[in-house]
Amino acid sequence: MKIIVIGATGTVGKAVVEQLGLRHEIVAVGSSSGQYQADIGDIAQVRALFEQIGKVDAVVVAAGKLAFAPLGEFTPEQFRVGLDSKLMGQVNVAQVAQDFLNDGGSITLTSGIVADQPIRNGASATMVNAAVEGYARGAAIELPRGLRINVVSPTLLTESLDSYGPFFRGFETAPASRVALAYSRSVEGAQTGQVYKVW
Amino acid sequence: MKIIVIGATGTVGKAVVEQLGLRHEIVAVGSSSGQYQADIGDIAQVRALFEQIGKVDAVVVAAGKLAFAPLGEFTPEQFRVGLDSKLMGQVNVAQVAQDFLNDGGSITLTSGIVADQPIRNGASATMVNAAVEGYARGAAIELPRGLRINVVSPTLLTESLDSYGPFFRGFETAPASRVALAYSRSVEGAQTGQVYKVW
Repeated sequence: MKIIVIGATGTVGKAVVEQLGLRHEIVAVGSSSGQYQADIGDIAQVRALFEQIGKVDAVVVAAGKLAFAPLGEFTPEQFRVGLDSKLMGQVNVAQVAQDFLNDGGSITLTSGIVADQPIRNGASATMVNAAVEGYARGAAIELPRGLRINVVSPTLLTESLDSYGPFFRGFETAPASRVALAYSRSVEGAQTGQVYKVW
Repeated sequence: MKIIVIGATGTVGKAVVEQLGLRHEIVAVGSSSGQYQADIGDIAQVRALFEQIGKVDAVVVAAGKLAFAPLGEFTPEQFRVGLDSKLMGQVNVAQVAQDFLNDGGSITLTSGIVADQPIRNGASATMVNAAVEGYARGAAIELPRGLRINVVSPTLLTESLDSYGPFFRGFETAPASRVALAYSRSVEGAQTGQVYKVW
């Protein structure tokens, strides 16, 4: 398969490239690195990206920004960060990918444990991750030509414990190599409309 | 209790006013009717609304627009309708309400069955309704002073069968008067972070 991995230089993306690269041709995309660059928050850049790459069999997105703040201090602009980036960035990719995926191809998006298990300062993260899962649930029943869409919901990465541990006290972590298996299940399996929880 | 009902002249809102009005003082708010008017998509209007009304014990929102379209034809602008109105409109109310609710007061938002049970043309509806539930799940653990937040998820209203029935074939409907009971449970009960499914 030819597989686009967006966010290929992030901690999850690197592990996904390593796992899927064992068996498939990977096209690595980043916001400022990788073989191709694109800001997925801008659907015109997403379309230009796919036009350069052409037809593919799978698209994985492991990218998207979120803002964190105490609930009482959250501004509409801070909510907008996650809505524009982690939500609509991924939705933009999923929408455009429908025109470039070969029959039976797949789209795999990324949410996170906070969708289900809220943390302090995380109202936007829970909202946005739940929205990503909702989009995929809705899209799955309408995709044509056997196209599939799933979401991977990772817990805190073991590799991110030093940076984010204080916000996730008591959460079990998972190494990125284990999280990458869920992307493999989505891409190389046959299910659609699933949320693969790695926790 | 003094209770603000936003969307008070809608089918759900009217039933909520009727149910809660039996025992409480209702302040009816609409986008273009009711005792007060406000566009909840604009947080400045929401703040001005609360400043006029003053302290209250509960806020109910049964308002918010969504766009519907076949998945392959959905534009970012169409997704934006629901994100700006049904999602951020309700989030704006919930955020501002925190400064105007008396201790132990409650916020009740509205999602819908499509959050869990997708329909054709409904990718945005599933996404946005799931996001509303996500926001409430995240906010519930951070609200101060015993404040509570819940979501009511109605099925198709019996009153809306003529207009929306073709999009919801096979769905059991519920009359608005039954849906209104869920808002009563949220406002007059003691739970927080719940989704009351009326289906």
